[in-house]
Amino acid sequence: MKVLTFGEILLRLASPGYSRLFQKECLETSFCGAEANVAVSLAVFGVNSAFLTRLPKNDVAISAVNSLRYFGVDTGKIVYGDGRMGLYYLEKGASQRPSKVIYDRAYSAISLSKSEDFDWDVVFKDIDWFHWTGIDPALSDDMVEICLEACKVAKSKGITISCDLNYRKNLWSSDKAKSIMPELMQFVDVCIANEEDADKTLGIAAKNSNEERGKLDKSDYISISNEICRKFGCEYVAITLRESFSASVNGWSGLLYNAKKEKVVFSPNYKIHLVDRVGGGDSFAAGLIYGLICGKDDQEVIDFAVASSCLKQTMEGDYNRATVQEIEQLICQGGNGRIQR
Amino acid sequence: MKVLTFGEILLRLASPGYSRLFQKECLETSFCGAEANVAVSLAVFGVNSAFLTRLPKNDVAISAVNSLRYFGVDTGKIVYGDGRMGLYYLEKGASQRPSKVIYDRAYSAISLSKSEDFDWDVVFKDIDWFHWTGIDPALSDDMVEICLEACKVAKSKGITISCDLNYRKNLWSSDKAKSIMPELMQFVDVCIANEEDADKTLGIAAKNSNEERGKLDKSDYISISNEICRKFGCEYVAITLRESFSASVNGWSGLLYNAKKEKVVFSPNYKIHLVDRVGGGDSFAAGLIYGLICGKDDQEVIDFAVASSCLKQTMEGDYNRATVQEIEQLICQGGNGRIQR
Amino acid sequence: MKVLTFGEILLRLASPGYSRLFQKECLETSFCGAEANVAVSLAVFGVNSAFLTRLPKNDVAISAVNSLRYFGVDTGKIVYGDGRMGLYYLEKGASQRPSKVIYDRAYSAISLSKSEDFDWDVVFKDIDWFHWTGIDPALSDDMVEICLEACKVAKSKGITISCDLNYRKNLWSSDKAKSIMPELMQFVDVCIANEEDADKTLGIAAKNSNEERGKLDKSDYISISNEICRKFGCEYVAITLRESFSASVNGWSGLLYNAKKEKVVFSPNYKIHLVDRVGGGDSFAAGLIYGLICGKDDQEVIDFAVASSCLKQTMEGDYNRATVQEIEQLICQGGNGRIQR
Amino acid sequence: MKVLTFGEILLRLASPGYSRLFQKECLETSFCGAEANVAVSLAVFGVNSAFLTRLPKNDVAISAVNSLRYFGVDTGKIVYGDGRMGLYYLEKGASQRPSKVIYDRAYSAISLSKSEDFDWDVVFKDIDWFHWTGIDPALSDDMVEICLEACKVAKSKGITISCDLNYRKNLWSSDKAKSIMPELMQFVDVCIANEEDADKTLGIAAKNSNEERGKLDKSDYISISNEICRKFGCEYVAITLRESFSASVNGWSGLLYNAKKEKVVFSPNYKIHLVDRVGGGDSFAAGLIYGLICGKDDQEVIDFAVASSCLKQTMEGDYNRATVQEIEQLICQGGNGRIQR
Amino acid sequence: MKVLTFGEILLRLASPGYSRLFQKECLETSFCGAEANVAVSLAVFGVNSAFLTRLPKNDVAISAVNSLRYFGVDTGKIVYGDGRMGLYYLEKGASQRPSKVIYDRAYSAISLSKSEDFDWDVVFKDIDWFHWTGIDPALSDDMVEICLEACKVAKSKGITISCDLNYRKNLWSSDKAKSIMPELMQFVDVCIANEEDADKTLGIAAKNSNEERGKLDKSDYISISNEICRKFGCEYVAITLRESFSASVNGWSGLLYNAKKEKVVFSPNYKIHLVDRVGGGDSFAAGLIYGLICGKDDQEVIDFAVASSCLKQTMEGDYNRATVQEIEQLICQGGNGRIQR
Amino acid sequence: MKVLTFGEILLRLASPGYSRLFQKECLETSFCGAEANVAVSLAVFGVNSAFLTRLPKNDVAISAVNSLRYFGVDTGKIVYGDGRMGLYYLEKGASQRPSKVIYDRAYSAISLSKSEDFDWDVVFKDIDWFHWTGIDPALSDDMVEICLEACKVAKSKGITISCDLNYRKNLWSSDKAKSIMPELMQFVDVCIANEEDADKTLGIAAKNSNEERGKLDKSDYISISNEICRKFGCEYVAITLRESFSASVNGWSGLLYNAKKEKVVFSPNYKIHLVDRVGGGDSFAAGLIYGLICGKDDQEVIDFAVASSCLKQTMEGDYNRATVQEIEQLICQGGNGRIQR
Repeated sequence: MKVLTFGEILLRLASPGYSRLFQKECLETSFCGAEANVAVSLAVFGVNSAFLTRLPKNDVAISAVNSLRYFGVDTGKIVYGDGRMGLYYLEKGASQRPSKVIYDRAYSAISLSKSEDFDWDVVFKDIDWFHWTGIDPALSDDMVEICLEACKVAKSKGITISCDLNYRKNLWSSDKAKSIMPELMQFVDVCIANEEDADKTLGIAAKNSNEERGKLDKSDYISISNEICRKFGCEYVAITLRESFSASVNGWSGLLYNAKKEKVVFSPNYKIHLVDRVGGGDSFAAGLIYGLICGKDDQEVIDFAVASSCLKQTMEGDYNRATVQEIEQLICQGGNGRIQR
Repeated sequence: MKVLTFGEILLRLASPGYSRLFQKECLETSFCGAEANVAVSLAVFGVNSAFLTRLPKNDVAISAVNSLRYFGVDTGKIVYGDGRMGLYYLEKGASQRPSKVIYDRAYSAISLSKSEDFDWDVVFKDIDWFHWTGIDPALSDDMVEICLEACKVAKSKGITISCDLNYRKNLWSSDKAKSIMPELMQFVDVCIANEEDADKTLGIAAKNSNEERGKLDKSDYISISNEICRKFGCEYVAITLRESFSASVNGWSGLLYNAKKEKVVFSPNYKIHLVDRVGGGDSFAAGLIYGLICGKDDQEVIDFAVASSCLKQTMEGDYNRATVQEIEQLICQGGNGRIQR
Repeated sequence: MKVLTFGEILLRLASPGYSRLFQKECLETSFCGAEANVAVSLAVFGVNSAFLTRLPKNDVAISAVNSLRYFGVDTGKIVYGDGRMGLYYLEKGASQRPSKVIYDRAYSAISLSKSEDFDWDVVFKDIDWFHWTGIDPALSDDMVEICLEACKVAKSKGITISCDLNYRKNLWSSDKAKSIMPELMQFVDVCIANEEDADKTLGIAAKNSNEERGKLDKSDYISISNEICRKFGCEYVAITLRESFSASVNGWSGLLYNAKKEKVVFSPNYKIHLVDRVGGGDSFAAGLIYGLICGKDDQEVIDFAVASSCLKQTMEGDYNRATVQEIEQLICQGGNGRIQR
Repeated sequence: MKVLTFGEILLRLASPGYSRLFQKECLETSFCGAEANVAVSLAVFGVNSAFLTRLPKNDVAISAVNSLRYFGVDTGKIVYGDGRMGLYYLEKGASQRPSKVIYDRAYSAISLSKSEDFDWDVVFKDIDWFHWTGIDPALSDDMVEICLEACKVAKSKGITISCDLNYRKNLWSSDKAKSIMPELMQFVDVCIANEEDADKTLGIAAKNSNEERGKLDKSDYISISNEICRKFGCEYVAITLRESFSASVNGWSGLLYNAKKEKVVFSPNYKIHLVDRVGGGDSFAAGLIYGLICGKDDQEVIDFAVASSCLKQTMEGDYNRATVQEIEQLICQGGNGRIQR
Repeated sequence: MKVLTFGEILLRLASPGYSRLFQKECLETSFCGAEANVAVSLAVFGVNSAFLTRLPKNDVAISAVNSLRYFGVDTGKIVYGDGRMGLYYLEKGASQRPSKVIYDRAYSAISLSKSEDFDWDVVFKDIDWFHWTGIDPALSDDMVEICLEACKVAKSKGITISCDLNYRKNLWSSDKAKSIMPELMQFVDVCIANEEDADKTLGIAAKNSNEERGKLDKSDYISISNEICRKFGCEYVAITLRESFSASVNGWSGLLYNAKKEKVVFSPNYKIHLVDRVGGGDSFAAGLIYGLICGKDDQEVIDFAVASSCLKQTMEGDYNRATVQEIEQLICQGGNGRIQR
Repeated sequence: MKVLTFGEILLRLASPGYSRLFQKECLETSFCGAEANVAVSLAVFGVNSAFLTRLPKNDVAISAVNSLRYFGVDTGKIVYGDGRMGLYYLEKGASQRPSKVIYDRAYSAISLSKSEDFDWDVVFKDIDWFHWTGIDPALSDDMVEICLEACKVAKSKGITISCDLNYRKNLWSSDKAKSIMPELMQFVDVCIANEEDADKTLGIAAKNSNEERGKLDKSDYISISNEICRKFGCEYVAITLRESFSASVNGWSGLLYNAKKEKVVFSPNYKIHLVDRVGGGDSFAAGLIYGLICGKDDQEVIDFAVASSCLKQTMEGDYNRATVQEIEQLICQGGNGRIQR
């Protein structure tokens, strides 16, 4: 069983500790990207995982690739060409001060991709699961086309397709997203979303929830899930539920909707003292894919996905370094945090 | 509209993270000082802000001046002479362990100032608002005289005068303060204080509050404010209300008393996971001055001042790096800390 | 009054901040060890304190010795020989992610000690109190013998003996511990334990408490204490009570059982935002010994021991750097964490 | 006397110490740019110095502006618009391993400038000296036009114009440069160049020097200088002479050709143990401008320029933090490096 | 063409900068080991490279494996079992103060290996070149046996065998080495050594050189090489020639002796300002293997090996991060260290 | 044999690496002081060493005392009182840029000492050697008196007295020094000086040397030494000879003049790549005292003193961490810097 994720890998430049950007004279570096994060988390779980992107051939990009190999991700499918390495600046928030992300990803090599850069028949040869996100088609019009081609070839080969809707308002407008995502969603078996994604990219909204205030109404999420499955023929919809009490403390849980059974299961809710919340959704996706691959039952799947992403948010960096054993221990013991000697 | 603040700028040497002083082999440096902090915060708000002090001519003091210029503070009025650059050591507390400040500010150039060092007619030429604090006259007997002269000239020019009472027990005794501050207070239009300042410097005490335990009785603060205005003819009294649950978590709010209206307004109360509480009061003063300058109504003024100083306490360093936009966002959205992408 | 503690000193290699082991390219170094920690804490309290161990003669061990001298611990009794310097890797947990300790202490010089390495008559010449822990006999069979000899000589000289049961499952099995500790306990005047120690090393268990969940039943602890005193003739049993809400927040309290009076006293319970929980038990032991040496009454003793160890857990490193003055201030003021200027 | 420099300001991301890019998990940040560097160095000399560029309005650019204000550079003329903040990655070389720069400056706000962004009549109102470099027109075709307009207006106002040829092969080809620079050079009074610039941008080559090997033939430089002055009507040509023995040790000197006198003067040659060679040429330009502004004689001018840039290369960062006093001390005492107490 | 190296991987704990061990409160971590270093350098060259060792299953060892994967080394052949992860402490010297290594590698998992841990037929399935060093048999008597078995199987499969003699006096005595190495050398095709190795492990000494003083006599090295080839049937002997002027500056060159041609070739001599000399010999071995694999002629081979290891010594860490392109540039341009933009 | 050194201990705040003061946001901390440095170096040599000073009772001073205890210095004689802890800022130079020291030591506790603070009869009870420096009487007029009293009591007890002339121009003028030092020198047995000290404090000048240029004439030093011995009755004069080629490279040697034998011996000359030159003279003094205490012959003494101080200058911090074994190895092997495994 081999999973391919497709998307962008970025350099992350984070202000150290709780200092504001450029308050100190250094930035902490790591690599990240919604799809790369999923690939790494799966590799740490022991899944055979490959990542596909398009990169320039320079020392920054080579280091990005090495950071994936460190965790055992197969980087042999990556293609190289013109364009830059995208990056983002991160300032970690605290208490009432929100975290802040400044993207500098325009003109990245992946956003300049052309259809001919990817030979999907070759790419998918040893692949059983294909994961992409709503960031991919948001990068450029060519990327819309490329995603469509990838989905078609994957479908024709019987590969399971998962998509995290991942709406990014500085990459495209909600209107643009809604004009494109529905077509791509036709191919998706497993749809992953957070509070606002379904609304902004598919026009499927929660009626009573007020996303700005972090107040969540569970029945709404069920109706959203149901509608997605009905419209696009998905087998599963998984939704992360974040309650933002402050930049330091968040509630975190999730649900999984099984279209065949027409049933939803909810995970426990973790109150997290955040170390680094970025990448939380991606580690949820990775946990979900892992659970489904392993043939866990629906409750086990959502519990694993939420525990996986709970642990990610207690770690620095976008990459989820939690192992299957650590996640299972959290599920069993409920997060008392007793020292492991 | 140009604001001048007058006082000391110090080098701050802080132990990194939660380590005790000299537990690690480095100290984090920044510059600070009750009045310098106000000047910086105002400059970050976009206010035309100048800072006046007296400094030695060495690399430490030049770096202090540069740190003010970084934020756009006008440093052209600063005078130079003999004496040292004051400094303080800071050990950040956590949970039950309090933060600890060790001052080494004796014999600083500002404390050695003589009347003839400052030509107030020239200093105040382009100034509309003059801010000083109770630390100024506490530095030396000459500084008492200098403050008096400054206040007189400012008054004569129709400049608004604000004073943060800022009692520091290691600079002078409460008795000494009470023998000096009342005379200076005659010139003050806007008086800023915290729980113990009015008592220690003016002899105006809360009756029922127990400052040591952080228990606050609002009616007391109203009577204190009223009494200050009555005695010294102030137009406004603003008081910060800190509830110290631990060195890690504080409650934070404030009130503004309008003497003309004989009315008090209270801000919301923020429960802050502290990053660095030092400079909280100064960023409150800056927010207050900004609000009054902008012609906001009393509730808006106190809300802005408290939100400004709430954000400061989520940032490292004495200087308040919060922008007007960030403060207004906090006021609108109530501190849920959702990530800004 | 001079206290000797006897045991191991280790190099501690801790991942910086909340990063996972080897996520960053450096490890923070300090020295530690259950018994060395007690020696340092006592020296910081101003007690005449000596530490005895066996070390190799290399730069690592010399630095360990120097780290003790820094705090004023007498290191003149230490003996030198073959074997390594033990060490452990520490990854600090956060929220639902537990802290993690990886020991690498096999073949340490102290574990290779032979009876003839220690001349207890000479060692104990100026000693009034002897403190050892359950880690000592767990290190090797020779160390069992050595502890026995030490206890016998100490007893014969009228030296007070305290022992922290300190069960370590990766050093020996509970069965092995239970076959050895009872004999050694015959010599112990003051027994210190945490939730699981008495069960694992002496087979004396709490009936209703569920240690894994951090739920504590006070009556059980009284019966455990009573049983220990009855079986081994101890004068005092002190027990630390940790409630592990998460890796970031713990409840912390303790009790002291006085066999003669057949009475138990409980300390207040501190809710601690943990900076570094390792060494908490050792600083409790040091506080207890200090209180008993000073002739405090039982309630004062347990209050001091718990406040001492509460403060330790707000500091980085195993060593407790809290002074008597700081501990007394916490006892008086209850942990409001107000800044000390 | 006020000097305006015009060009780009970049974020510099440097690998710490001698580590390779991304070998450690952080990058040291500073701001830089050939023209910004000159502005800062002049401000440190006490010259009234302004910097003009075009920037996006985000936290990165604001920090860049603040970094200029820190040194007292007037940043009030800067314009804001679309585009990114350019950046470059720096890996410091050592011994046989060369330093390495990876530019990521495409699509920067300055490179997207349009003619209408700059109102040169307003810009030049208080300016006496205008400094630009060959990087400016290399950024885009619009920038060629903009430079031409700037030069024309400056000339018409009697402003002295200096240009550092600064050839950058990854911004434009030598052929492109040669098709553009000659027209712009018509306006230049003071031309600054290094070994290869005149050849690559003006087609004026040294005959016998072999730039790759760092072997310099002084007579060649005289003939180059002479030819530049003849062709473009410059008053002065200044050339830096770098002998690259290794990435750790360089020889450094310079010459100044006075067209009116038809005479060349050479500076002493400094053998520099390099701390950071980047920005060496810019600090030379600043020293040269300072010397000419001060009315020093030709020998004094070149000595000051070379000593200025020698000291820069013993400091970290692109910005030259050497003061006039430090430079004069180097000129007087010849670099024995005796400690200053 | 795939190369397998076999040996130990250690954790390296280096004091930062030029500080003494434990002078600062952190140690810089990296992974290393004579044979692992060769595997990494080859992988960076683009060679298909695998590393075989025996490790415990803990977070330290997993990070070691990941550090190899980062560079693309195949770690799939590694076996796991009991024992520790070896480590060493490094204090970098400067000028007259030598660098200092303190090993703590006893009881490592590889030193506890048994014959049955390795199935050489499986291990060597896809291998064309086998590299081991004199450290392997020095680790334990079992490892002597294991090396012998490996060599026999490799020989029987026609795999080229290279060995770096790598004498380590704290692992075994010269007498012990001389009683074991000759038998193993019978299988070696390419022998690599430094000044003292041949003497200490094979009893083949330079007659006139005085290794302690770094004075080298080339004719001696020729005779040593010749004798090695004659005695053990090697095809090539390569020797590194280090002149230790100080801990900061070393001369570095090498020679290659071709037994068939009975001819020796010498490389150029590099005077290196050392950044980190550890791993110099291993990067020489990697360069040599690369050169021979590529079919370069003898002079090209030794030039590549020496340039490779020259560059390594200008980089931090044991691992050689120099690329083929960088090495070839050094060979072409002779180390002038000009900045690469 | 126990040595007492008497003087000041300061906090040193050093800019990291080669950065300018406040270029980075931290300062590296250590403790130092001419006389404290000697005490530490002697303790590292294994000599029974005590340090006497006067300090305030705060966390900074306690850490200073602890830093001495770390190395085994007896700090039990230190007295406590009013005044500050002195400090200095250090910016490390490189190449042509000199190192820079900014003192902030006025009003230190030691400079405020009164005669009655020291009971010399008690202080000297277990002391055999008394070391002070020219900084002591330069601190205040009271300190002149105190030094005189100390010398008198020491002399009366037959204690050997050594003095390092250590002229500091920012503490007193040469004229003031010359009016005071001669009287104190009457008590001195061993006088230590550098190039300019004898001239500035005693008015005994080298005739032909040009200290500013670092050109040294040996015969001059002999005549200076001779004159000192004749005038003040010293037994030994030792002089350090520094050739300042640059801030990065210095020549370093010394001489010892034996008054009884009327003979001078010179040490070898070390060319040092400086890591940190501050404290060089103090480690020379310590080496000298050690050599004389051990009864080495004159050549051995000066060789040891110079090798000791050579090694100090290859280490960070004022304190000399070189051991006797390391110094002897340097003397034997001549500084080839070969790695010690």
